[in-house]
Amino acid sequence: MRTITSITEMQQWSSIQKKNGCRIGLVPTMGYLHEGHLSLVRQARQDCDLVVVSVFVNPIQFGVGEDFEEYPRDLSRDCQLLDQERADVVFAPLAKDMYPAGYNSFVEVYGEITEKMCGASRPGHFRGVTTVVSKLFHICQPDLAYFGQKDAQQLLVVKKMVEELNFPLKIIGVPIVREADGLALSSRNVYLNEQQRQEALVLSRSLQAAQQLIKDGERDVEKVRVHIKDIIETSPQAQIDYIEINRASDLASLERIEGKVLIALAVKFGTTRLIDNLLVEV
Amino acid sequence: MRTITSITEMQQWSSIQKKNGCRIGLVPTMGYLHEGHLSLVRQARQDCDLVVVSVFVNPIQFGVGEDFEEYPRDLSRDCQLLDQERADVVFAPLAKDMYPAGYNSFVEVYGEITEKMCGASRPGHFRGVTTVVSKLFHICQPDLAYFGQKDAQQLLVVKKMVEELNFPLKIIGVPIVREADGLALSSRNVYLNEQQRQEALVLSRSLQAAQQLIKDGERDVEKVRVHIKDIIETSPQAQIDYIEINRASDLASLERIEGKVLIALAVKFGTTRLIDNLLVEV
Repeated sequence: MRTITSITEMQQWSSIQKKNGCRIGLVPTMGYLHEGHLSLVRQARQDCDLVVVSVFVNPIQFGVGEDFEEYPRDLSRDCQLLDQERADVVFAPLAKDMYPAGYNSFVEVYGEITEKMCGASRPGHFRGVTTVVSKLFHICQPDLAYFGQKDAQQLLVVKKMVEELNFPLKIIGVPIVREADGLALSSRNVYLNEQQRQEALVLSRSLQAAQQLIKDGERDVEKVRVHIKDIIETSPQAQIDYIEINRASDLASLERIEGKVLIALAVKFGTTRLIDNLLVEV
Repeated sequence: MRTITSITEMQQWSSIQKKNGCRIGLVPTMGYLHEGHLSLVRQARQDCDLVVVSVFVNPIQFGVGEDFEEYPRDLSRDCQLLDQERADVVFAPLAKDMYPAGYNSFVEVYGEITEKMCGASRPGHFRGVTTVVSKLFHICQPDLAYFGQKDAQQLLVVKKMVEELNFPLKIIGVPIVREADGLALSSRNVYLNEQQRQEALVLSRSLQAAQQLIKDGERDVEKVRVHIKDIIETSPQAQIDYIEINRASDLASLERIEGKVLIALAVKFGTTRLIDNLLVEV
């Protein structure tokens, strides 16, 4: 496995592979890899001739007062894990190369899809995501790019961007990986103390309960929302950022549960903000 | 020569050619081709294995009250000319395919480079340009893309976008083509009546005079500007939009003429807005 930090070198490598007819899979990550990331890499390994994993903690998708500085980093451990998964290249560019002095070009998806949920709580976040993802696509030139369903809104936004700006590639969404007790894997889970780690189980538990409620016939969005809220509020430390139930294809608001629906949560435990979600089809 | 209107078909064609190791040159145009466009096509024909010319009057780069509806169009004549120049593909997509209902993804370069000159007179214009050019790059996947020096600010903005967003291609600027009497070629010249066509010569004449003044030792930007203004105002119909003298690399403002300088004009004759420019190096 090769580690590349130079943007030019990465782009040249990709251009050569493309000319040789190779199918490139890209897994964009912010590093500190867990089984969730590795499931994306395994999927890419199955589908593609060559697998590139980018490891880059993208400063422009963090807001003021967010955890950019503290975000956990361990590139040598990431490289070990990726070597075991038979990735071909780890692309780990420097922030000063990705955003040199005077940098001022951005890619943005507007509308409800970026305005609600994490877009409302984290202004500018999705602009940072769509910009860095565009840059990574241009540098690594993948045929397929893999994103976790854990960041459900990000997956939708990136899919819309790729479709509307006609990027010559396909986005593959990969299911959430959970701990045995239900907690969705996240690099941010390391922030949690023992008590918070235990209380954070209300996220997956409330989603499961909502699914059961819908299975039992409930179709009123507000009633399902309140049911989730009641369960989350059994955790003394939980501070709810949002509980949203929207159409899964475009996050349009709903009053009744019909078709494919995304139930999405963001909840803070202490200073740690966790997200989780569930797709339900009626 | 092949004419393609389907985005999917164009993208598939490009992907196949790239896999075969072919070097693709793209000439993005709004059609109604003149010798200026054809000089771009000839340059691409020299440099590349395959030449794609896009013909698309891009609605989102026109402001309210501008000439989108009247903009001259003649695709069959364009195709004839491009066939003579041995272009390989004319890509002429439909607006409803480029911007389907709900379209909301944009690429934008911020800062002085898009805020002054045509950016000030035509709000949203460059956002329309950078968005359509990004789409065309993703669809046609060129190794080289050709833009006229006539639209000097557009050339700078597109170069900055390509560099900052890491598009895997190179932008080639091609010199202005002029009529024998000095008028820069433009599809919009057909709007001019005989009197306006004659008066429009003040543009190239004032630029030549400015160049001479600088050759003779003048270094004061304001004095050169006033000299240009005086010459343009000898035309009774001319309404000046802007006369700007800026650093050629990034359009930074200057008080003294030094290094590479761009002298750029936008002037209306009746309802027809013409632009012209000159690069001067001291």
